[in-house]
Amino acid sequence: MIDKVLGGAGLRGQVAGRTSLCTFGKSGSGLSYRGYDISELGEHSSFEEVAWLLLRGRLPTVAELSSYRRRLKSLRELPQGLRDILEKIPVRSHPMDVLRTGCSYLGNVEPEKTFSAQLDVADRLLAALPGVVVYWYRYSHEGVRVSTDTSADSLAGHFLEMLSGQAPSKFHARVMDISLILYAEHEFNASTFTARICASTLSDMHSCVTAAIGSLRGPLHGGANEAAMALIERFNSPEEVVEEVLGMLNRKELVMGFGHAIYRESDPRNLIIKKLAARLAEGHVRAHFYDISCAIERTMWEQKRLFANADFFHASAYHFMGIPTKMFTPIFVCSRVSGWAAHVIEQRSNNRIIRPSAEYIGESPRPYLPASER
Amino acid sequence: MIDKVLGGAGLRGQVAGRTSLCTFGKSGSGLSYRGYDISELGEHSSFEEVAWLLLRGRLPTVAELSSYRRRLKSLRELPQGLRDILEKIPVRSHPMDVLRTGCSYLGNVEPEKTFSAQLDVADRLLAALPGVVVYWYRYSHEGVRVSTDTSADSLAGHFLEMLSGQAPSKFHARVMDISLILYAEHEFNASTFTARICASTLSDMHSCVTAAIGSLRGPLHGGANEAAMALIERFNSPEEVVEEVLGMLNRKELVMGFGHAIYRESDPRNLIIKKLAARLAEGHVRAHFYDISCAIERTMWEQKRLFANADFFHASAYHFMGIPTKMFTPIFVCSRVSGWAAHVIEQRSNNRIIRPSAEYIGESPRPYLPASER
Repeated sequence: MIDKVLGGAGLRGQVAGRTSLCTFGKSGSGLSYRGYDISELGEHSSFEEVAWLLLRGRLPTVAELSSYRRRLKSLRELPQGLRDILEKIPVRSHPMDVLRTGCSYLGNVEPEKTFSAQLDVADRLLAALPGVVVYWYRYSHEGVRVSTDTSADSLAGHFLEMLSGQAPSKFHARVMDISLILYAEHEFNASTFTARICASTLSDMHSCVTAAIGSLRGPLHGGANEAAMALIERFNSPEEVVEEVLGMLNRKELVMGFGHAIYRESDPRNLIIKKLAARLAEGHVRAHFYDISCAIERTMWEQKRLFANADFFHASAYHFMGIPTKMFTPIFVCSRVSGWAAHVIEQRSNNRIIRPSAEYIGESPRPYLPASER
Repeated sequence: MIDKVLGGAGLRGQVAGRTSLCTFGKSGSGLSYRGYDISELGEHSSFEEVAWLLLRGRLPTVAELSSYRRRLKSLRELPQGLRDILEKIPVRSHPMDVLRTGCSYLGNVEPEKTFSAQLDVADRLLAALPGVVVYWYRYSHEGVRVSTDTSADSLAGHFLEMLSGQAPSKFHARVMDISLILYAEHEFNASTFTARICASTLSDMHSCVTAAIGSLRGPLHGGANEAAMALIERFNSPEEVVEEVLGMLNRKELVMGFGHAIYRESDPRNLIIKKLAARLAEGHVRAHFYDISCAIERTMWEQKRLFANADFFHASAYHFMGIPTKMFTPIFVCSRVSGWAAHVIEQRSNNRIIRPSAEYIGESPRPYLPASER
């Protein structure tokens, strides 16, 4: 009976499989990728290095990393057919719908023919997805056909350069790089679990990533940083925060960017992104968004003992770098595709189709009556 | 520890949620939709009636069913942008990739703006997906731009008419109708569970169905009827079967279309489709495919006590109706979208994000070393 209750409530606390990719709350700051603490990775590593680590199991040598950067750089171009499709997607579409469709289309023209190509497909998606969403964004919003073949060495710089049309500052590129590291992997979250179920039918990599994008799109999952931004923008000063947040809590409205399904006391990623948001705020015309964010964080802790998660200070950090709010969740995709692909590869390596049971709570057996007798 | 072992093996037997949609092995023939036995539905009902039942909770009255048929008929047309995209998808693409991409694209141009539109989106997908896959198929294979606005009253007839270019016989239309009924719903199978996880993030209907199509694409799930056809076609007569199937079993090769993750003794859908396959075989130039199928079924039972599941006789049945093998799994989509959408609606009605845990089996904590020291 306990199983049933747990099972009915989002499988919380239920072990649904094994992983070597990521661990929570076991040691260090509370999150590690393949044994490396997130705080060390955030300080010293790069996103390309982390993606290699997740996909290939160990940190690359100097030569391997440099060759991997060149490789990802060579995989950024989008096929003309995909660009044509992106130009047909209306400006009002949800950017996550665009990414989901672009990823799915790539599966038609660049299919994963055998699982021996799985790392190639993962690298291609890592390199191409930033271009998919930014190409659509700039074409639909500005009428610009952006080049997806920038000279930026990192995916972080590449994304920012395509989006703004100019090379980012070193600091902005590094903040984006760290942000991609923080979002790269997070165990059996809903989108990753979606990817693994899809993988468990022995479906292809594009299907798994497309499915995961669809799950990440949901406001209870990837949409949290966008919702946090919408909240922050409602205030003109930190002084307005307490009363309004209290009102929201009284009205049982969800305050997004707080608490976590797994973490109980804090989110180790928050410390890192919060510090970066503070530095980005310095001298920014809307620097008060940082103070407002701190006031919301304080109020949520005092009122509900809920801590800011990775999403909350990402909102102001991205905003300070000039990123439109609707592009926040797509950045999450550009990072998390590394973790999704690594989980797909792991699921395939020791697979059984994921097929749980359900508790039936419906009608008892009943006879079929012809329509005229209903 | 038992939980862990179960959890590591595809969540088999684990209750992952509640449903009113479908029950297995509780009574009657062993499968019911909302309390109605599959054998009664297969005999007396129609796919449109079953879709209404799944989506709306009860069987429709005469007036409701007739209005629902008209409604689905009015929703068959594809937007020009989607037809343009389908024309860009190569002939060698996997038809499931086409459906996944077409469904995802519809989410861009016809988004589910609020959950109050969920039944409208479900009906639209039910009505449009057959046209998506057949439009692509006939354009890429034959250069024909097929009309997706046939005069057929049923989705079954509509599909067959688009595919062959002429109205099907009453018997073929009825066999396809029954086939769609049999495939409409099956509790927490992998693709449906994929759709529910996606729904649990409060993502949109198109994301959920797109994700489910990706899962159904896998050869361990929806691809079984295609694999069964490939096996049947290897034989010229039933006499060749025993030796070859014994060889496959000795070589530990998978024989698709047999056994089931949940059913233990038989699949109630097999009885129904097997009878129909026998009637379709009568007078058909490849009628021996039916006898070969029976010989495979007998051998698998005698050797392994494995029974034919719903997929196995679907292979020859579809083949006798002139359906190309690569369209078998897409037909499954056109039917199962009713069950997926019903599960999405059910998940939303009492939602908690589906976020299980994992057992960590990876590296212990280890220090980050600079690249030059690795």
